[in-house]
Amino acid sequence: MKRAELEAQIERKQSVLCVGLDTDIERIPKHLLQHEDPIFEFNKAIIDATHQFAVAYKPNLAFYEAYGVEGWQSLNKTISYLNENYPGLFTIADAKRGDIGNTSKRYAEAFLHKLNFDSITVAPYMGIDSVQPFLAFKNKWAIVLGLTSNEGALNFQFSKLNRQAGENFNYLFEKVLKDASEWGHAEQIMFVVGATKAEYMQRVRKVIPNHFLLVPGVGAQGGSLQEVLKYGQAKESIGLLVNSSRGIIYKDPSEAFAEAAAQEAQKLQQEMKGLLFS
Amino acid sequence: MKRAELEAQIERKQSVLCVGLDTDIERIPKHLLQHEDPIFEFNKAIIDATHQFAVAYKPNLAFYEAYGVEGWQSLNKTISYLNENYPGLFTIADAKRGDIGNTSKRYAEAFLHKLNFDSITVAPYMGIDSVQPFLAFKNKWAIVLGLTSNEGALNFQFSKLNRQAGENFNYLFEKVLKDASEWGHAEQIMFVVGATKAEYMQRVRKVIPNHFLLVPGVGAQGGSLQEVLKYGQAKESIGLLVNSSRGIIYKDPSEAFAEAAAQEAQKLQQEMKGLLFS
Repeated sequence: MKRAELEAQIERKQSVLCVGLDTDIERIPKHLLQHEDPIFEFNKAIIDATHQFAVAYKPNLAFYEAYGVEGWQSLNKTISYLNENYPGLFTIADAKRGDIGNTSKRYAEAFLHKLNFDSITVAPYMGIDSVQPFLAFKNKWAIVLGLTSNEGALNFQFSKLNRQAGENFNYLFEKVLKDASEWGHAEQIMFVVGATKAEYMQRVRKVIPNHFLLVPGVGAQGGSLQEVLKYGQAKESIGLLVNSSRGIIYKDPSEAFAEAAAQEAQKLQQEMKGLLFS
Repeated sequence: MKRAELEAQIERKQSVLCVGLDTDIERIPKHLLQHEDPIFEFNKAIIDATHQFAVAYKPNLAFYEAYGVEGWQSLNKTISYLNENYPGLFTIADAKRGDIGNTSKRYAEAFLHKLNFDSITVAPYMGIDSVQPFLAFKNKWAIVLGLTSNEGALNFQFSKLNRQAGENFNYLFEKVLKDASEWGHAEQIMFVVGATKAEYMQRVRKVIPNHFLLVPGVGAQGGSLQEVLKYGQAKESIGLLVNSSRGIIYKDPSEAFAEAAAQEAQKLQQEMKGLLFS
């Protein structure tokens, strides 16, 4: 998907909501277990109920790999369902992949071509040749981990660097944002930024004022939507996708799960509308 | 697998060889394509031909995910074949996974429990809670990316850090080795170290003198086996697994591929024997 199409969808829906499909067979309503593929049935119902409030869907691969071959079948069906029925939605394979060039190329083909996701999350530790293969597909995106929302982000992402000539930042995550933003253009690289503190979101936007950010951690992980929307917007457009997974999809464990998810998605969309478009 | 068992196997076979099963359907001998699962048939033949010279096998997940559901079936069959027929061999899922704790736990279950690999490679960027779930399984291993063998290693792994009190290293990869080595004990954490230059291997061993290292990049990626074995050994044991993938499995594209792979594996084992046990 082109950046302009994603932006147009955001304007039209007045939403930057990404729904995380972290589907766990132990948490979905029991009546779905009679289906041949309960995970797909759950995803399908969630997508049908929430699509008018969301601009993106993000299955996290770990939840599908946990079920082996069956999990991959559920993933296949989910992305096919999205692409066939809602071609305007932006799709993200939250896979956090990355390997030497020759090998990353395989991951890129698997997710961006074969499964036909619009984008995939990638890990930066192995550097440029581990990310470049994901940039070889037209109108597809690599979403590079910049600053994550978990406790372990403190271990390395906040390592203080010796400043090199011409660099005006302190932390490793800032160098990752800076360097990786130069590996391609802002129409093919986004960043995962779990910064929910204003200070760090401002630091991020100093380094990459125009890139799209995928922001996890709003909702179950405790981040503030208001701070994110206030400090995270790009210079020339909104440039944000804000993810919520468990807070939407597991809102209600009964047979009315999809309606509850829709209500929750709508609530978030209304908050976004109020904060971004009023 | 316990460390003592892996070490006993290394002593018995006089080998630290790991065979990388980077199986690409376009590079395997054409006569195998008539089989229902050519990738598994290829792997099976390679394993049968080389197992007496190798102590470990390492399928790289990218090569299996590239074929979607069928690829996962081939992976399933390959790890089952290894576990059933050669239970003494050490198995590595080269997956380079890592996510927030809740999600990494899913990957850990998938690879260490369900598929029953002995170990999995993991990426360090997201820090402690992204790695800890892989340490929750008895006699299983997390193999953390330390210093990789690719060009992109220069981007971040060699970032110079501001020294903190008590730290006596310069580079990010040294901090990764040091910090991650403290997240568990040396019976459950190894490191990927693609250092083929003596200088860097010596730096690595200063930080983690006793951990096992998984060394890629010998062979097709151009590393020197002699340097690795000279400078990479642990203080109290050999502590090395040296991987070769393409150099062994694609040695000969004809129907005699397995015999050629065996010869190549034996050649490497003999070099290892000469350098380590004479």
